[in-house]
Amino acid sequence: MPEAIAQGLRVIDLSGAWRLQQEQHRAVYDFADADPVTAAQLTRKAVYGLPELNGDRIPHAALVANPGCYATSVILALAPLLRADMVDRQRGIISDSKSGVSGAGKEPTSRTHFVSVADNLSAYSVFNHRHVGEMVEQLELGNQELVFTPHLLPIPRGILSTVYVYLNREAKAAEVESCFREFYGGKRWVRVFATPQLPQIQFSLHTNHCDLGFCLANDGRRLVLVSCVDNLLKGAAGQAVQNMNLMYGWNEEEGLQ
Amino acid sequence: MPEAIAQGLRVIDLSGAWRLQQEQHRAVYDFADADPVTAAQLTRKAVYGLPELNGDRIPHAALVANPGCYATSVILALAPLLRADMVDRQRGIISDSKSGVSGAGKEPTSRTHFVSVADNLSAYSVFNHRHVGEMVEQLELGNQELVFTPHLLPIPRGILSTVYVYLNREAKAAEVESCFREFYGGKRWVRVFATPQLPQIQFSLHTNHCDLGFCLANDGRRLVLVSCVDNLLKGAAGQAVQNMNLMYGWNEEEGLQ
Amino acid sequence: MPEAIAQGLRVIDLSGAWRLQQEQHRAVYDFADADPVTAAQLTRKAVYGLPELNGDRIPHAALVANPGCYATSVILALAPLLRADMVDRQRGIISDSKSGVSGAGKEPTSRTHFVSVADNLSAYSVFNHRHVGEMVEQLELGNQELVFTPHLLPIPRGILSTVYVYLNREAKAAEVESCFREFYGGKRWVRVFATPQLPQIQFSLHTNHCDLGFCLANDGRRLVLVSCVDNLLKGAAGQAVQNMNLMYGWNEEEGLQ
Amino acid sequence: MPEAIAQGLRVIDLSGAWRLQQEQHRAVYDFADADPVTAAQLTRKAVYGLPELNGDRIPHAALVANPGCYATSVILALAPLLRADMVDRQRGIISDSKSGVSGAGKEPTSRTHFVSVADNLSAYSVFNHRHVGEMVEQLELGNQELVFTPHLLPIPRGILSTVYVYLNREAKAAEVESCFREFYGGKRWVRVFATPQLPQIQFSLHTNHCDLGFCLANDGRRLVLVSCVDNLLKGAAGQAVQNMNLMYGWNEEEGLQ
Repeated sequence: MPEAIAQGLRVIDLSGAWRLQQEQHRAVYDFADADPVTAAQLTRKAVYGLPELNGDRIPHAALVANPGCYATSVILALAPLLRADMVDRQRGIISDSKSGVSGAGKEPTSRTHFVSVADNLSAYSVFNHRHVGEMVEQLELGNQELVFTPHLLPIPRGILSTVYVYLNREAKAAEVESCFREFYGGKRWVRVFATPQLPQIQFSLHTNHCDLGFCLANDGRRLVLVSCVDNLLKGAAGQAVQNMNLMYGWNEEEGLQ
Repeated sequence: MPEAIAQGLRVIDLSGAWRLQQEQHRAVYDFADADPVTAAQLTRKAVYGLPELNGDRIPHAALVANPGCYATSVILALAPLLRADMVDRQRGIISDSKSGVSGAGKEPTSRTHFVSVADNLSAYSVFNHRHVGEMVEQLELGNQELVFTPHLLPIPRGILSTVYVYLNREAKAAEVESCFREFYGGKRWVRVFATPQLPQIQFSLHTNHCDLGFCLANDGRRLVLVSCVDNLLKGAAGQAVQNMNLMYGWNEEEGLQ
Repeated sequence: MPEAIAQGLRVIDLSGAWRLQQEQHRAVYDFADADPVTAAQLTRKAVYGLPELNGDRIPHAALVANPGCYATSVILALAPLLRADMVDRQRGIISDSKSGVSGAGKEPTSRTHFVSVADNLSAYSVFNHRHVGEMVEQLELGNQELVFTPHLLPIPRGILSTVYVYLNREAKAAEVESCFREFYGGKRWVRVFATPQLPQIQFSLHTNHCDLGFCLANDGRRLVLVSCVDNLLKGAAGQAVQNMNLMYGWNEEEGLQ
Repeated sequence: MPEAIAQGLRVIDLSGAWRLQQEQHRAVYDFADADPVTAAQLTRKAVYGLPELNGDRIPHAALVANPGCYATSVILALAPLLRADMVDRQRGIISDSKSGVSGAGKEPTSRTHFVSVADNLSAYSVFNHRHVGEMVEQLELGNQELVFTPHLLPIPRGILSTVYVYLNREAKAAEVESCFREFYGGKRWVRVFATPQLPQIQFSLHTNHCDLGFCLANDGRRLVLVSCVDNLLKGAAGQAVQNMNLMYGWNEEEGLQ
């Protein structure tokens, strides 16, 4: 990959190698083999490939780090309210996320054996999943402000994240919905649901959509967000195509309908 | 049922009719037909049938209100830490719960149709599920201190609740584990997992166990609890048998192995 | 529908109303309301809408009777060998077919409830399924020459038919494969697998393909055919689009890729 | 194992090593390591451990070869009619069998990966599955009289075999049912369903039952049999316990309720 970049090729990388800017977060990956100088240079060059956040930088990037599937679902759920400074970060943010088995990779293991997964649900990698670093970097959160718990669902594909935040002032549901609609106005691949309707995993399967919905408690503070993506499309290859479309100045829908 | 009680029969009721003491919580059920005087008398008589909490009152109860399935999984996860006053209640408690389809009843609806459930996950009844009243009453929480979100899993049976709390002081994992082990010492139908091992839905299926495990973050404050029950056994009929065993002075295992 | 035809509109009908020419087979449907004279006229007009068999008549048809999903999978598996007179019909033909739940319709019933279907398999309508009439008419079989057994699979969509025939002379696998390749040469929506490779339900899901494969025993007589379709596409709406393309002289792929 | 037998221990063997008497069938297993003389002696000693067929020999056997899961379901479906000489064997017998994934073993492979199995169905080992030898030996069939096709179902456990035979004379359904009821009279672990009711996989799950049902066509000749077992119980460990009960003269239900 460094050679490809050196020769002037532009790269969209689906691995986790270039997603993280901060050393503390990069440590969860084992990049011991890499030449540290080159690695540092490439890391600085890399643009985090979430088009709804970094749509201005991706068109000119030499190296696009395609986001993780869980990270895509969590960041897109939280970015609008955090950017609008509506979240009481001191009370903490929780993302309870659930993924289909293709998110765990193709390698056959006892964990991905049909009999282990069917008729089951399990939490894993609590407090130490690799995607947390992407989330806190992109959302500019402190490490202790976010709790992320992934779960393995007995379905082939799809992610649903249920995200819990407390607002820092009493708000009405209409305000929250406006915040989302403004942030994602004109964004082709995000669908904001009218509250209290919520997305389900089936709705975004086999599409490149990220679907977002929410319910606000009657105290105007407690907020439950629901975010769904197909982990193989908006959570991986579909988002890579979307990034390619931006890099080449093509229509953002090209190859994705 | 009032007639049965009047004639001196002892009743274990699996409906939600007698689980709630406070009028504000009873309002979620439609008990318009009931004679209010009788209803108030019976409500006072009723003992909430969670043996691990009310094991001293159930043996003498005329009317045992068998708990809801979600409520069983959430209350058993939270009771030890709340009773030990280790929880920072001001930061809020969250239970993200997931249930198999038998929890939604036998009636065929578009929601329980195989094609609606398979390859899917959905949240529902956010901020207004009927079991919340049981949880806050039994745990002596304020209404705004708990957020409960149920989800429909593509499996026939089983519940997993992922419960999020913040401790009110830095603790070590061993302290948390001790708290659980002391609380459930001698309780036949609760299994406490050694941290960081977590229960999965498969482990308690076809048994009357409630399985409990947890992970504590390295800040000693953020805590993720996982609680599993089979909604048809510990979450319903199995717990009723357990209550019957207590009411008759029988071995708590009778009919449940 | 008769009115539409009378006014010169062309119709593709997805119901079973016009698929059957012989009165004995039509009796399984309840067409009591229809005016018998009109019904008889329309039945004569109707063309059975299986493009790989009736591709010459569909372009000019006023009324196309879109085939049943099971019938599509069984007829396409058997037509080549029967037309080539390679089958020992006296020994009987068996189709053991399995369908996903969407084939049973949208109506919620106890039979389509998630808990009835998951972790299960069941045979139904043995010797009396409505699609048998289509199969024997299109394949020109006697009523006792075919046994058809449908089963309900715990999946949302897809059909796999395992079809058993005895050849009327010893043959080699290459001959059988040639028979299929010749019959389906130039047919866009049928894929013949090289023996002994067999199609699986996943391969044709979300496509309009009918996938066909077979294994011949070393006695050169006993033959197992496997046929897969997505019951919602080649087994229903996809085939209707394919018929529309033929009726309008459009490319057979239009709207189906 | 030979050592154990030599020392006078009695053995119930769950492998395929001692199930087959005829060399032609033993060849499908790779027993190259075994000392041929010892192997031949043990093979002669071995009793095929299907209690409903060999209930007279198992109590005295030194070596019981516990049957394969598919073989159990197929042999129990066919034995009554074959022993009563009611089957037209010249027209051939077909067993179209479907098994849950635990039948494929615990080893994680690409074939048992959740994503390969879910939303899918596939046939495999057509004309060369190892269990065919057991079936033809126990049923005293010629090799070409039986076609057996196994399929992999997207469920954790359970087998359903749909078995097709032609009767050698016109019969009434009541005669067929009597044949089954007589054959299995007093057999604790076989349930014969009243025609036209058919067993489903769910009915025998988590039990040691083999469930049998059938439908006879109105020509009195074409017969569809359905046979269900839990492959982990009657198809494996449960049957081993049943054999142990017979070997020790215990009640056949011991440990199985």
